[in-house]
Amino acid sequence: MSDPTRATLDALNGTDVHLRHVCRARDATDRVGPRHFLHAGPPIALADIPGPMRGGIIAGLLLEKEAGSVAEAEAIIDHGEVSISPCHDAGAVGAMAGIVTPNTPVVVAETAGGLRTFSPLNEGIGGAMRYGSYDEGTLARLRWLGDVLAPALDEAVEHSDPIDLVALVAEGLRRGDDCHNRLVATTATLLVTLTPGLLRSRLDREDLAEVVAFVAGNGHFALPFAISAAKAVTLAASGVEGSPVVTAMAGNGREFGIRVSGLGDRWFTVAAPVGDPVLVEGATLDDVTPTMGDSMIAETAGFGALAMTAAPAIMSFVGGDMALAQEITRRMRTLCAGTSRRLLIPAEDFLGTPLGIDVHRVRALGVEPVINNGLAHREPGRGRVGAGITSIPIEPFVAASEALTEETERRR
Amino acid sequence: MSDPTRATLDALNGTDVHLRHVCRARDATDRVGPRHFLHAGPPIALADIPGPMRGGIIAGLLLEKEAGSVAEAEAIIDHGEVSISPCHDAGAVGAMAGIVTPNTPVVVAETAGGLRTFSPLNEGIGGAMRYGSYDEGTLARLRWLGDVLAPALDEAVEHSDPIDLVALVAEGLRRGDDCHNRLVATTATLLVTLTPGLLRSRLDREDLAEVVAFVAGNGHFALPFAISAAKAVTLAASGVEGSPVVTAMAGNGREFGIRVSGLGDRWFTVAAPVGDPVLVEGATLDDVTPTMGDSMIAETAGFGALAMTAAPAIMSFVGGDMALAQEITRRMRTLCAGTSRRLLIPAEDFLGTPLGIDVHRVRALGVEPVINNGLAHREPGRGRVGAGITSIPIEPFVAASEALTEETERRR
Repeated sequence: MSDPTRATLDALNGTDVHLRHVCRARDATDRVGPRHFLHAGPPIALADIPGPMRGGIIAGLLLEKEAGSVAEAEAIIDHGEVSISPCHDAGAVGAMAGIVTPNTPVVVAETAGGLRTFSPLNEGIGGAMRYGSYDEGTLARLRWLGDVLAPALDEAVEHSDPIDLVALVAEGLRRGDDCHNRLVATTATLLVTLTPGLLRSRLDREDLAEVVAFVAGNGHFALPFAISAAKAVTLAASGVEGSPVVTAMAGNGREFGIRVSGLGDRWFTVAAPVGDPVLVEGATLDDVTPTMGDSMIAETAGFGALAMTAAPAIMSFVGGDMALAQEITRRMRTLCAGTSRRLLIPAEDFLGTPLGIDVHRVRALGVEPVINNGLAHREPGRGRVGAGITSIPIEPFVAASEALTEETERRR
Repeated sequence: MSDPTRATLDALNGTDVHLRHVCRARDATDRVGPRHFLHAGPPIALADIPGPMRGGIIAGLLLEKEAGSVAEAEAIIDHGEVSISPCHDAGAVGAMAGIVTPNTPVVVAETAGGLRTFSPLNEGIGGAMRYGSYDEGTLARLRWLGDVLAPALDEAVEHSDPIDLVALVAEGLRRGDDCHNRLVATTATLLVTLTPGLLRSRLDREDLAEVVAFVAGNGHFALPFAISAAKAVTLAASGVEGSPVVTAMAGNGREFGIRVSGLGDRWFTVAAPVGDPVLVEGATLDDVTPTMGDSMIAETAGFGALAMTAAPAIMSFVGGDMALAQEITRRMRTLCAGTSRRLLIPAEDFLGTPLGIDVHRVRALGVEPVINNGLAHREPGRGRVGAGITSIPIEPFVAASEALTEETERRR
């Protein structure tokens, strides 16, 4: 193994990440403003954004009171009077559309070395900003999350022992979650950990009961906790000269892009794949927004599809059986530079998950990496239209491998 | 499959069980009194009880204020001034020593048909009555469990939607627990389910925080919930004329006994096995109380060792690897009459667990059934000395098979 690869793996394996805050995005970053929002995936022009992202921006403009009506919000977008930039450039990761505005409630993680990352709280099922909903119910819930739930959780964090987010993911894997598409056990673990602190918060009991019931009833609540940790370890692993290890994978609904440790913030992109998802009743492939979201930072950090053998229960959700789960984890072992020392798979006799997708290996083997994927309806606010195991075309990995080789040669 | 076998399986598969109460044993049964306690396993003479059971009775006499000192309690036992009978005869199951006194805090389960079962609350790690501890710390915790935790949980049950205990076990299996020796995810699930109701109880916040922290910190807390459900389904499956399906397995530290559906309350026993456990540091096999406890009702009801492939994380606790887990579940499939319709194993493509150990099959194949086992130190109050996968000698299964055959012939 080359030294840069080893250094990157050491960072992926050795970076401790703790839960720091649950707050509004404006308290976590100066990269958002009333008219500047973050979005999922590689950069995209406002004119090109897919439906759910447009809906998310409408929701954001209403939430920020920049628009008084949907029509006003649409006009602001159409006149280019709002700007957007990738979550990843702000140290953030957003599931699905990934729209982050100043008042978006977020989870903030921090590495031992002081790197901070954040991710929007999961709004649960039904209408959600991440799917581009902007109805009053969605906005009311976002306000409640920001006004009630987030401060309560933030106080709970303060009253709790430090919460190790990598350990949370590791425990989730022991409890049958992949921590990308299945987080029901991880959510219960997180809630149980935070509840004594919640009880010591200033929140009144009825609000507390509502907060607990909301978290308990939302099987994906732990997702932003898991992926903000994943972003933190991959950020710590970024910028290692010559390293071929992938440090970000993300989609904006048009393009899917990757970043590589040795190539800084440069994106290598390809048309976002749709794959062969399990669709909800009545939906067709025409209804699907191609791969969108930053949550495949999970796979970048060694969980999600890479931990499929730890989470066989997920196969009923994404389609497939245990043999396919084994095939996927096995396939990803061939594409990864190493093995996680912290994320262990009980069903593989506690072997670590594959860790650190290596663009040179993808190029050499010509094998497509896979992610666990959720897919949004292409119209704003229609919600999840499917889920599946998605193979990512090798083109951006090959391009990154070539670019890295060129750069290495140039440096000689 | 014979009609009696099918009828028994239908009862094991179809009996719904809900959490009814968390209260003191005296409010759940009239089978206990200040000088009459319940114990684990088949009947045993007071003079023959193993160390942890003696310690548990001492704890019970102190808890009931029948004795003012350990010496007085010992004298009561030595003069035969206290009597004992099996938990199983009272519709109860007790882990380890299984001593139940009027003030023992218990979980009460109830079938849709009105059968009630109960099991002592798990006291957590450290000194515990189930291991025969009778120090002041153990007694104080038992009093706190009865005075504070039990009434709070009972109120929470009242304020909650009905809690389906078979579904709790099924969910546990999806979350990597076998629900006999590993219940950490199941405990979190249970706590998350009860917390909104707890918040609506009369308990003050500091007590609530203590209750939640106690449950969250006790990975076996869900055990009595799981095994009282197992007792309920096996009770519903009992008394089917001609049925060779096992309805109870239990140890008293001297003898291990089984009951069979077609043979009523009759016990078939053998010397309790020790097996080849993973011992705690410094312990030897001489320190071990042979198999003791009623918790192998789990295996009787289709989980525990029978669900080993669902719970690979447990192998590091009981010793062994994934191949052994697969071998155990496979072995138990050959000894069971059927397959669970409710307890599904994700890693086996959602195939049900083996269900209904058939004494005729054990006799015909000569293969020993296995249980996941916890083992107590032979001295009172020394706690858990080991854990392991224990093979049960076939003698009681063979004897029951022969008895059933004889009885069937007699009826002709």
